[in-house]
Amino acid sequence: MSQVSTKPASGMRDFLPKDVQRRNRVFNIIREVYESYGFEPLDTPAMERLSTLMGKYGEEGDKLLFKVMKRGRKLDKALRKDEPQDTDVADMGLRYDLTVPLARVAAEYQNELPRYFKRYQIAPVWRADRPQKGRFREFYQCDVDVIGSEAMTVEAEVTAALAEVLVRLGFTDFRIHVNHRKLLTAMMEKAGVAPEMRQEALIAIDKLDKIGRDGVIEELENRGIEQGSIDSLMPLLDQASEPTSPGEFDNEATLAALREEVGELESGQKALSDLDKLLKFATSGSAADHLYIDPYLARGLSYYTGPIFEIRSDEFSGSLGGGGRYDELIGMFSKQDIPACGFSLGVERILVLMEERGMFDERESEVDVLVTLWNDDFTPNSFRLANELREAGLKVDLYPDNDRYGKQFGYADERNIPFVAILAPDELEAGVVALKDMKSGDQEKVAREDVAGWLKERLGS
Amino acid sequence: MSQVSTKPASGMRDFLPKDVQRRNRVFNIIREVYESYGFEPLDTPAMERLSTLMGKYGEEGDKLLFKVMKRGRKLDKALRKDEPQDTDVADMGLRYDLTVPLARVAAEYQNELPRYFKRYQIAPVWRADRPQKGRFREFYQCDVDVIGSEAMTVEAEVTAALAEVLVRLGFTDFRIHVNHRKLLTAMMEKAGVAPEMRQEALIAIDKLDKIGRDGVIEELENRGIEQGSIDSLMPLLDQASEPTSPGEFDNEATLAALREEVGELESGQKALSDLDKLLKFATSGSAADHLYIDPYLARGLSYYTGPIFEIRSDEFSGSLGGGGRYDELIGMFSKQDIPACGFSLGVERILVLMEERGMFDERESEVDVLVTLWNDDFTPNSFRLANELREAGLKVDLYPDNDRYGKQFGYADERNIPFVAILAPDELEAGVVALKDMKSGDQEKVAREDVAGWLKERLGS
Repeated sequence: MSQVSTKPASGMRDFLPKDVQRRNRVFNIIREVYESYGFEPLDTPAMERLSTLMGKYGEEGDKLLFKVMKRGRKLDKALRKDEPQDTDVADMGLRYDLTVPLARVAAEYQNELPRYFKRYQIAPVWRADRPQKGRFREFYQCDVDVIGSEAMTVEAEVTAALAEVLVRLGFTDFRIHVNHRKLLTAMMEKAGVAPEMRQEALIAIDKLDKIGRDGVIEELENRGIEQGSIDSLMPLLDQASEPTSPGEFDNEATLAALREEVGELESGQKALSDLDKLLKFATSGSAADHLYIDPYLARGLSYYTGPIFEIRSDEFSGSLGGGGRYDELIGMFSKQDIPACGFSLGVERILVLMEERGMFDERESEVDVLVTLWNDDFTPNSFRLANELREAGLKVDLYPDNDRYGKQFGYADERNIPFVAILAPDELEAGVVALKDMKSGDQEKVAREDVAGWLKERLGS
Repeated sequence: MSQVSTKPASGMRDFLPKDVQRRNRVFNIIREVYESYGFEPLDTPAMERLSTLMGKYGEEGDKLLFKVMKRGRKLDKALRKDEPQDTDVADMGLRYDLTVPLARVAAEYQNELPRYFKRYQIAPVWRADRPQKGRFREFYQCDVDVIGSEAMTVEAEVTAALAEVLVRLGFTDFRIHVNHRKLLTAMMEKAGVAPEMRQEALIAIDKLDKIGRDGVIEELENRGIEQGSIDSLMPLLDQASEPTSPGEFDNEATLAALREEVGELESGQKALSDLDKLLKFATSGSAADHLYIDPYLARGLSYYTGPIFEIRSDEFSGSLGGGGRYDELIGMFSKQDIPACGFSLGVERILVLMEERGMFDERESEVDVLVTLWNDDFTPNSFRLANELREAGLKVDLYPDNDRYGKQFGYADERNIPFVAILAPDELEAGVVALKDMKSGDQEKVAREDVAGWLKERLGS
């Protein structure tokens, strides 16, 4: 057979055991926290009908979908067409995010799902982006959403759970930037930005982080916002003071100032009332010290209808995830609108940061002890010892070949297994096992019945 | 926006929380057992290059691959060809099993992997089979493999781990049928089946379970095996006695009889020596009572080179999984052959059986308690209580809306949440929480500091 490339396909990654173990530790913490908040897991197929996916992510998104070819006669027919299009040849696509599948599920199972559907999903999505450093074509998303309530308790719970995840992972110095789509509308209305120009203005406003305040002004000009509107808009956006450290921003003052300016407008009133409630509900939760009202936060996706969030920190650039309320998205799949609010944690970015900053609680090995072999006739004894230790709750590897002990120890070293158990005829007869500490090189004979205890004590488990 | 179907695509499934929780409980037991045997997790991409997948699963397999379309200019170019073929239009495919990706990984990371690579992988695979009852286009596989040793300790460990998984899941009355490809070769050699007819004969032999002994004879005839060979072959295959119950088959007698017949042939000698060792090594392990030497077992895949396995039971039809030694498969991706042996557990079949036989250890709900709301002003108190209980390790849902208590209780019922916590002004002032047992309907006031303990005691956690 011809030699083919053994690398993963472009933009894809293999995760060897050490990587998987690290990733799983992070995923498990996220799962644990979300479950403690009453969220339940959902699983949807990797492939969706093309009609489910197309038109949901904008023109650019449609291009980035991985499309799956039809099969058999349908494929033959499509390929024989004159100038076939991609949508003739494909009938499914790989999921692009976890939100559209959720919206489909919420519509399909309306009668089976509880009145409030609190779900989390940690799963890969696929995008045909050009691969580059830190950007992959297969990557995990980690979403929580609550479907079925318009109350700000939802926003307070989602942000609290999220803050707790970050704290449990070891991040402390982060902010959850909060804004409200209707507050942005009110500010633009007050500044006289014409309704048809507001989406353009949002794009400019959202770039504060990347291009600074002067950059935003320039971008607003370039996007055709009138000078007078810009002059009125910027002071409104500037209401929030720069935060200094967690818990040290005066959100109440920000809201009071905004109330002065836009409190009399209908959208301003609704937004300020929502944000008031969110702050009040959050006081006793994990997000309390992290919430930061930021009038500049806009977020790109057009489907948001209420509060919006984004996690940032002075310690690193970019965002660790974002979310918000989208009361109209599920209506794309259902006959009625169903309110919803969710957050997508940037788990791949979090994993990279944790790696860079040495935040992983390193374990040398997932295996506790290697049981060695003496010879074929003696192998059943080694098996028996391995089983005893497994029954005692230890993770045990058994060396497979009849090699000299030096080679067997070498393998334990290679896998970073901390202890090696030796059971040769002498040991068996004496009712002991020789235990070798691979770090110190010390070897000790331990009575057979004490072996598991001896190991557990030293492993600190 | 037009209404599109909200069902999952053909052959795909949505798993609502209760399904995911059940599936995860099974996956977690599998993981736990495999890790206790020193296996480590591997994760490979859902998509592989088409060249990695094509030609590995036979002609039929190539047709069943889900192929992913090229994108952008490459796609345009392919579609503009005269009579484009599927392989012109597609460049990747969804993985069809977990073995070929493992072989690719073993070849690619030879220098990074330990001398013996013991990995497990629980992950979905995709096949464009016609969907039917119990057969899906996306389904999980659950594989363990050991790469790097030719020793029968590997077979003994793999079957022991596997038996332990089944026992832990609640299956007891199962057999691990064992045969050896070289034993089949020896029997056919002895019976005078011509080498070029042996693959045909294997296909017939493998069907004993489905078509019975007379059916096998007829199938051998139909496939062109000479009558004289069939007459010699059948008594060889018949050496094993029908098993009656676990542990009650005489494998030693089977091997002794086979040794009489084919022990002098080279392939027979090697096979019998391997099976002898496997049985000896396995005596002290979890598989000891389940191993059953079955000369009829053949298994379809052509890549097996040594011992082969399959799990069966009189309690249900078909197999719960199978595997074997494949010392030459990795050579398809690597310059040298690397010995390997593995097993794929039929986890979807296992899940169906567990469902049918009521083997799931049912939990009513994953949420322990629902904290109710009184009104907006009082909501921060409910948040505080919810957080206290979460910190104590409980899974807590917070009702989102200011509904009357009856409606809040109804939601707890709907989600099968066993307890409801009520914190109205009276309770707050008295320093208590009213706890309602949703099953009995009883309500009790409990001092605030005792709430978590009271709940844990009743939840038995």
